Amino acid sequence: MSALDEGHFNVELENGVNLGCTELGIEEEADSIAIQDAVKVLLQGLGEDINREGLRKTPLRVAKALREGTRGYRQKVKDIVQGALFPEAGLDNGVGLAGGAGGLVIVRDLDLFSYCESCLLPFQVKCHVGYVPSGQRVVGLSKLSRVADVFAKRLQDPQCLANDVCSALHQGIKPAGVAVVLQCSHVHFPEIESVLLDSNHQGWVKVLVSSGSGVFDNRNAEEWTDFFSLLKFRGINMEKTNIRGSRNQCWCPSRSSVSAKSSSKTEPVNPVMVTAVASILRSLGEDPLRKELVGTPSCFVNWLMNFQSSNLEMKLNGFVCRRKDSLHPGREVNKKKEICSELNLPFWSQCEHHLLPFHGVVHIGYLGSEGFIPIGKSLLQSIVHFYGFKLQVQERLTRQIAETASSLLGGDVIVVVEANHTCMISRGIEKFGSSTATIAVLGCFSTDPAARAMFLQSIPSAKT
Amino acid sequence: MSALDEGHFNVELENGVNLGCTELGIEEEADSIAIQDAVKVLLQGLGEDINREGLRKTPLRVAKALREGTRGYRQKVKDIVQGALFPEAGLDNGVGLAGGAGGLVIVRDLDLFSYCESCLLPFQVKCHVGYVPSGQRVVGLSKLSRVADVFAKRLQDPQCLANDVCSALHQGIKPAGVAVVLQCSHVHFPEIESVLLDSNHQGWVKVLVSSGSGVFDNRNAEEWTDFFSLLKFRGINMEKTNIRGSRNQCWCPSRSSVSAKSSSKTEPVNPVMVTAVASILRSLGEDPLRKELVGTPSCFVNWLMNFQSSNLEMKLNGFVCRRKDSLHPGREVNKKKEICSELNLPFWSQCEHHLLPFHGVVHIGYLGSEGFIPIGKSLLQSIVHFYGFKLQVQERLTRQIAETASSLLGGDVIVVVEANHTCMISRGIEKFGSSTATIAVLGCFSTDPAARAMFLQSIPSAKT
Repeated sequence: MSALDEGHFNVELENGVNLGCTELGIEEEADSIAIQDAVKVLLQGLGEDINREGLRKTPLRVAKALREGTRGYRQKVKDIVQGALFPEAGLDNGVGLAGGAGGLVIVRDLDLFSYCESCLLPFQVKCHVGYVPSGQRVVGLSKLSRVADVFAKRLQDPQCLANDVCSALHQGIKPAGVAVVLQCSHVHFPEIESVLLDSNHQGWVKVLVSSGSGVFDNRNAEEWTDFFSLLKFRGINMEKTNIRGSRNQCWCPSRSSVSAKSSSKTEPVNPVMVTAVASILRSLGEDPLRKELVGTPSCFVNWLMNFQSSNLEMKLNGFVCRRKDSLHPGREVNKKKEICSELNLPFWSQCEHHLLPFHGVVHIGYLGSEGFIPIGKSLLQSIVHFYGFKLQVQERLTRQIAETASSLLGGDVIVVVEANHTCMISRGIEKFGSSTATIAVLGCFSTDPAARAMFLQSIPSAKT
Repeated sequence: MSALDEGHFNVELENGVNLGCTELGIEEEADSIAIQDAVKVLLQGLGEDINREGLRKTPLRVAKALREGTRGYRQKVKDIVQGALFPEAGLDNGVGLAGGAGGLVIVRDLDLFSYCESCLLPFQVKCHVGYVPSGQRVVGLSKLSRVADVFAKRLQDPQCLANDVCSALHQGIKPAGVAVVLQCSHVHFPEIESVLLDSNHQGWVKVLVSSGSGVFDNRNAEEWTDFFSLLKFRGINMEKTNIRGSRNQCWCPSRSSVSAKSSSKTEPVNPVMVTAVASILRSLGEDPLRKELVGTPSCFVNWLMNFQSSNLEMKLNGFVCRRKDSLHPGREVNKKKEICSELNLPFWSQCEHHLLPFHGVVHIGYLGSEGFIPIGKSLLQSIVHFYGFKLQVQERLTRQIAETASSLLGGDVIVVVEANHTCMISRGIEKFGSSTATIAVLGCFSTDPAARAMFLQSIPSAKT
């Protein structure tokens, strides 16, 4: 029972804020333990030591994040909406439409996240919900957000999420109609085999979906025109929206790469790991045999194996020996020095604390002598990818890139890593829009604030 | 006991999502009841019927929001940080700084909200936290956000909040230093007496504060230069930051207007309402006699009285009789009609469900005949203010403006209200950046989609 006790203790420590699940029931406790066991299997499958410090509590963290991220399975919409319907007179229908009768109400720009049912990665949702009241009743505005959140906190597909939110609100409010528009962004990591070749890889797959009921049932209804008019200046274009119902094309980039690979790739997916993921699905209250979930465990394992600790090892051997002095023996390096830099090198990594992706850009600065031939961008990019495709933390990634770059670039190196962490949005804190920056400085950059400032000021504003 | 039971039942309904406070202990239950009783006193002081549908559950909603918004009083930082310190080797100090030793780590753009200790209104915080690790230990990134949140969820002043977060992190992580920069925005409603005169009223008071410990203790330390370099491109300028410690000037706009008014205004603040607010402070775990809180109850009551239901009544009488046909008797109005509009009329209101401000802009469109003299902007602005300065809901506000404008403008009217609701950020859902749009249409605007579309497309993008 000591494992159980420690687990429980850790939930409280990790949580800090009591988020309502500190006191797990016996059943929830069993589900949490089952997920933790499965995560241990996955970590071992990656060749990791599950007892090393950074990973020791990872199974607990993953279990907690997954259960919280799928709490929508345990919530009832009816309770949320019923308590917040208010009588509101509205205009006489013969004269006009407003208030409790016929006047469109829209809540825009609700930030949500959900879990992709195809690959188990979280995806971000910018949600816009509207409805046309009837029966002289309006609903509390926050309830539109709460209901959307109930369905987002499940394993989802964008169109399915839009449909779920739309019909739940329609049943709950009984309005003249409900309209839902979702802008969904799914992180899209490049394949580890092709990452060095594909320099223009796009980091996100984006999709815009909509769903309508009642007066919004007809996609050409004038109510949709009103709705989109009020979203238009939020950067949404009506013509680009997918129509309800077309769920055949899977948007998930992991899934499409699996099918593309299945013919070429010979390495089979580790069946023990696949079984572990299926058991996680069951512990979350899902049916691993549901049509949309059948391929999910192997898809997730496939993706996870990108971060096997031994990946790209050979490529490292390729560059650690290419030191500058060995490349240019006898060359005089003590001429006037200037700051050279490579900015915005993309990286892709996996947070070892939560098994969730983080990605962003690396900026590398170094001192080059006059007439010095700068190190190729592609070599620095290789170093970045080498340390990225691992179970990582950003601080270590920054240091490792700096150390390796330093051995190539002569000791005076500054490295800045800017990243978006999925674990900052898809867990309790839900800090959409936050970003993290880390710095490593070597040689003169650690002693000369002016050199550091000059490089830092050359970093362009982050793209959003 | 039926009141208690119903209260408890409603907590669950309102909550929907179990946020950890459904099962209140006896003490918490007593605190919640005390707050609810005080809110009833405030509503009665405003001249409201506490049994009308929209207000019936307002005391419960306010109590819940206030207790959740001040949950930081019941949280311990030590528990949050201790569980998430990880060994990270870092670079050898002789060579450079990174990872677990000396490499700056910054988490930027954390959205938080807090309650102003001077006036009890929530204020928004964009929080940037950094630290320099030492002792080969780094902290989980999300903990920086969680710790900041513990202190934000109290009655605060910006500088005090920055100092609290800084010293708590310093004690928890024991790093080489901690830096905190906060961009705070406090909603600033105009005085009801001057709102019609002051057309350039600014809706926000903004302040930028910072706090530093260890290597950041000296405001001229080079570490601050690095820190600000990485915030610079987020629109933050080092020179404009307040220095730690200057807490003498109160930033709160309500407080400064109280002192300005105290000489001119003769009407005394209702002492029963002031006592009720003091009892709320006690129920939240605060000491109403703490120096910074002494004036808070009367300040809050003063602000609340802006929304007394009888306000501005005389001004309404001034404009309801000015109908167009009475202004221009016998004038022919059936010439070729065109859409006239007044866009971006500011409004200020108070959500009757949560006693929290909401504000934004109103766009009014109407049909004017050729040669028609447009209604003055100031008259429409008066109508908007009249219906704004009340306990309101946005749907009703929209309808009321449309009805009154219609009586003046000849029946063909469209009104769009765009608003930011404090209740969407300062309660459980915390949807920073969301906004709400409502529409009312009268006469031809309710039957002619093309006229509606033409007006809606003329509305400019919302300012942020």
